[in-house]
Amino acid sequence: MTRVTIAVQPRPYDAIIESGLLERAGEHLRRITGNRQQVFVVTVPPVRRKWGKKLLASLSAAGFKPRIIEMRDGEPAKKLATIEVLAASLTRMGADRDAVVVAFGGGVVGDTAGLLASLYMRGVDLVQIPTTVQAQLDAAIGGKTGVNLRTGKNLLGTFHQPRTVLIDPSILSTLPERQFRAGLYEALKCGVIGNPGLFGRLEQVNTKTLRCDASGLGWIIAESARLKAEIVSSDERENGLRRVLNFGHTIGHALEAESGYRHFLHGEAVAWGMIAATHIAVMTGRIDKNTALRISNAVLNLGRLPKIQARSRDLVRLLQRDKKTRAGKIHFVLPREIGKVEVVNDVPEKIGMVALDELRRLSKS
Amino acid sequence: MTRVTIAVQPRPYDAIIESGLLERAGEHLRRITGNRQQVFVVTVPPVRRKWGKKLLASLSAAGFKPRIIEMRDGEPAKKLATIEVLAASLTRMGADRDAVVVAFGGGVVGDTAGLLASLYMRGVDLVQIPTTVQAQLDAAIGGKTGVNLRTGKNLLGTFHQPRTVLIDPSILSTLPERQFRAGLYEALKCGVIGNPGLFGRLEQVNTKTLRCDASGLGWIIAESARLKAEIVSSDERENGLRRVLNFGHTIGHALEAESGYRHFLHGEAVAWGMIAATHIAVMTGRIDKNTALRISNAVLNLGRLPKIQARSRDLVRLLQRDKKTRAGKIHFVLPREIGKVEVVNDVPEKIGMVALDELRRLSKS
Repeated sequence: MTRVTIAVQPRPYDAIIESGLLERAGEHLRRITGNRQQVFVVTVPPVRRKWGKKLLASLSAAGFKPRIIEMRDGEPAKKLATIEVLAASLTRMGADRDAVVVAFGGGVVGDTAGLLASLYMRGVDLVQIPTTVQAQLDAAIGGKTGVNLRTGKNLLGTFHQPRTVLIDPSILSTLPERQFRAGLYEALKCGVIGNPGLFGRLEQVNTKTLRCDASGLGWIIAESARLKAEIVSSDERENGLRRVLNFGHTIGHALEAESGYRHFLHGEAVAWGMIAATHIAVMTGRIDKNTALRISNAVLNLGRLPKIQARSRDLVRLLQRDKKTRAGKIHFVLPREIGKVEVVNDVPEKIGMVALDELRRLSKS
Repeated sequence: MTRVTIAVQPRPYDAIIESGLLERAGEHLRRITGNRQQVFVVTVPPVRRKWGKKLLASLSAAGFKPRIIEMRDGEPAKKLATIEVLAASLTRMGADRDAVVVAFGGGVVGDTAGLLASLYMRGVDLVQIPTTVQAQLDAAIGGKTGVNLRTGKNLLGTFHQPRTVLIDPSILSTLPERQFRAGLYEALKCGVIGNPGLFGRLEQVNTKTLRCDASGLGWIIAESARLKAEIVSSDERENGLRRVLNFGHTIGHALEAESGYRHFLHGEAVAWGMIAATHIAVMTGRIDKNTALRISNAVLNLGRLPKIQARSRDLVRLLQRDKKTRAGKIHFVLPREIGKVEVVNDVPEKIGMVALDELRRLSKS
């Protein structure tokens, strides 16, 4: 069992990483809920079908009266209208201020159920039980919640830290292969940001073999989660340091938005974004070509990525709207070496265009 | 000028009460926004028509580039769908994380624009410029934001403290008389909770005369705002003391919900709620009959209230769903004397029914 502490105030919490943890979810919840009984598990149909019974059994055994609330799967469901429907379900089921909301799914469920928990009666307790690679090593840790607007991703949200994060890598065995790989790009991101050992492991990994290597996978998740936890602990509200976690996200978000959140999985868009940011780092003299090539190759080593259809011009227009854009200056996280990145606000639009054109070429080759 | 400090952490703020303050709104905003320019004024058509020019002129004179965003007037507009529309406007107008949202209106605008500011890009600065009695002396202070669900009032919301609250009693001159009176019930509430002098003033007030008595009105608002500020300062998140502010609100909320937020103004519903709570206090031996009569008479002295059409049974059912209900126990704030109330969780349903029946009779006499 690996325990990672997220040292935020006023209430630090732990992420616990262990194969088979789902069967002990009830015990872990009981530690933080006293004698409360109301637990509302927000999830999506595929997760419910595969793992719902196991979680409910564990919760019931620990004396809870768990209720399941289903939402639709996929990024388009991450919107305010879903929050309204889920909140109405909570009311109908009699949820009060002592209720505990469990987000049981991938990033979409985590962000949506997280926002629900932070808004319902002005805030009830939240527990994250992530079921995808991306959610386990990144999204479920750090308290960001959010929904999309048509005009951009995560434009509405809150910071609402969970009481605990329960990470069971054995759940990943039923994940579709594409989703599995998409999550590994976020682990690679952690490697580039601040963990050369993690980067080295992913540079050489065979994704097919990794799926069956529980301990190897557990290690990758734990290393990534630890990095995320450290960064969040020192900058909960993303005033400074936390921004490094956006490596690959500036262009990644634009790619997702331009395609209506349907063409790319989040990790895949971030993968392209990391290659583009690395290219910009080369053009602006921040990284040597060999290291840059190592990063791009490590991204491509994790598998095939969907092609980029969007025009560079349209993507640049979307960048102008990014919520990290301040006073018109686009925010980029650029690599300097393996394990070190830099937050930059002065990338000329022209260089952004060149990088995007290059990315389109690469995606079609 | 009266300045009341709301001593919340990490950033205390002031409510400033002064006749004619609207003309100096720009200066006051400038003090807290550094050299930022983006100000988005959320308001409703009647307020914009009467006071919009004056506010915009003051903001422009202080070097801001103010934009107006209109929302619909009235309690039914206080819903998540409105947040979505307002947020889309912010995006279209290029609002980034440095944006300042100004809530310029009554309680509905304050609650909705407050929630918008707390969600937009996970939180931007908020300034409250309340334009109704109720908002000036109560709602704009304390950082509660929220929208309604069909199943209940303010069921979704956050705590998002404004950077400052600018209160100009001279704005109240254009308020419809019914709205004006509805706000005074909240002042009376403050008197019963903790300010016998304020209660004494309101017990004898002639509402028609008061409308033209700027200094008298300013005093009532300042006294009420001070009480609210003291309570919020010691209990921002309503874990204990802040609950006393819900005097009259348990049944008040039920009355509003039952009539679809259309039949009563908020203050009017609270007025009935205060009479009911006082009746319950008599029945449970908490207050003597004479003092109880003084409270009821003071409520009725402020003017005619809309009749209660709802059946007591339906109201009790709604009480069970109130967000202050915990583990099935309905929460009441009951008066013990003028200036002292008690939070109670054990009022038997039967006594609630008797009080409601009595209230219906009274409302029809």
